[in-house]
Amino acid sequence: MLFLTPVLVAVLCVVIVWIFKNADRSTERKKEEPRVRAEVHPWVDEDLKDSTDLHQAEEDTDKWQESEEEVEHISFSHTRYPEKEMVTRSQEFYELLNKRRSVRFISNEQIPMEVIDNVIKTAGTAPSGAHTEPWTFVVVKDPDVKHKIREIIEEEEEINYMKRMGQRWVMDLKKLRTNWIKEYLDTAPVLILIFKQVHGFSATGKKKVHYYNEISVSIACGILLAALQII
Amino acid sequence: MLFLTPVLVAVLCVVIVWIFKNADRSTERKKEEPRVRAEVHPWVDEDLKDSTDLHQAEEDTDKWQESEEEVEHISFSHTRYPEKEMVTRSQEFYELLNKRRSVRFISNEQIPMEVIDNVIKTAGTAPSGAHTEPWTFVVVKDPDVKHKIREIIEEEEEINYMKRMGQRWVMDLKKLRTNWIKEYLDTAPVLILIFKQVHGFSATGKKKVHYYNEISVSIACGILLAALQII
Repeated sequence: MLFLTPVLVAVLCVVIVWIFKNADRSTERKKEEPRVRAEVHPWVDEDLKDSTDLHQAEEDTDKWQESEEEVEHISFSHTRYPEKEMVTRSQEFYELLNKRRSVRFISNEQIPMEVIDNVIKTAGTAPSGAHTEPWTFVVVKDPDVKHKIREIIEEEEEINYMKRMGQRWVMDLKKLRTNWIKEYLDTAPVLILIFKQVHGFSATGKKKVHYYNEISVSIACGILLAALQII
Repeated sequence: MLFLTPVLVAVLCVVIVWIFKNADRSTERKKEEPRVRAEVHPWVDEDLKDSTDLHQAEEDTDKWQESEEEVEHISFSHTRYPEKEMVTRSQEFYELLNKRRSVRFISNEQIPMEVIDNVIKTAGTAPSGAHTEPWTFVVVKDPDVKHKIREIIEEEEEINYMKRMGQRWVMDLKKLRTNWIKEYLDTAPVLILIFKQVHGFSATGKKKVHYYNEISVSIACGILLAALQII
């Protein structure tokens, strides 16, 4: 696993937004009030909507894809273990996952692409809002591209430390002794970039709403971390 | 695993917000512009802040906890497998996780509490913003409490279908043949409620900022799903 830690670190550090819409339009939208809004529990409204583009969805109905396709339900099957074995298995998995660390120093040794493929396929088994699977995983091995990514991330991260996140954030991070320099993004043989899709497109090019996209992508990241820790 | 599916389903369905702040204050805050804001990339600002209470953090500095405690760094150790075995392990984990289903019909059979404990401890190994671990897992076994939870969730979910989420959401869900009736919340022997902590408290009762709390909790949910699928 020593030479897998780059991937793990990269995953933890490189979560970038997939921007389909341009910044202007998103700013405009923010000014308006959501059209459909229940009176009941404002925090539920907020939580449920995630960064889902509900308002936009209602607005330009023509441009959005109708969902007529039938979904095939696949039957559920699972090996059932005796109680004692369940306890052992859950204990062993806990002990393995508990060894995971958010490391910032990493090896440059190569790992088989088949492993990366399996890890990403595993992440893709995550549940998602209305089964929209609103994620894109991009594997980067080219040193120049990795370096450009490092530059973008360091630039944004420096803004975080300098002004975006505020003085308290800098103070709270102090004890972790982190900063905005991310040398490991060059060192790592492989970066997995994880993009969240704010919305998708159907085969015919029409827009499709991606519900709960941030929560869904983050759940997939959790499963990806587990898959990385297993190998 | 057949009689574990209740837990799995409950986890998927019961994600509730941990409300420390009252609704009035959160509404007020929304009207104001964030004080600290970088000019560069609005989507990064939005993504990074998650539901983190940065603005509030800057406002009442007195009430917030200073983070002077030193954090102990624990060394990273991991069994390193030969390449061939890494491929096999990643393949097997993929095949196991790929059997997970978001089931809505579940068994009422009991499972050992030790298993539930291990699964939650595993979820708690997730990484989190500034290592704040902004989650609370609540295990519910009492039938009356489970039923009350079902009522709350069904009430909110009915609002989702009726007006909160809009007509398109209802259409998009149609093919999945779901609705707001969640009988399995009564049937399941155990519910795991997952709360996201918008902020925390230190030992001395002062507030602590929980950065990226929604992303962090969702990653923990992903690891929890993996742990449930392992047993």
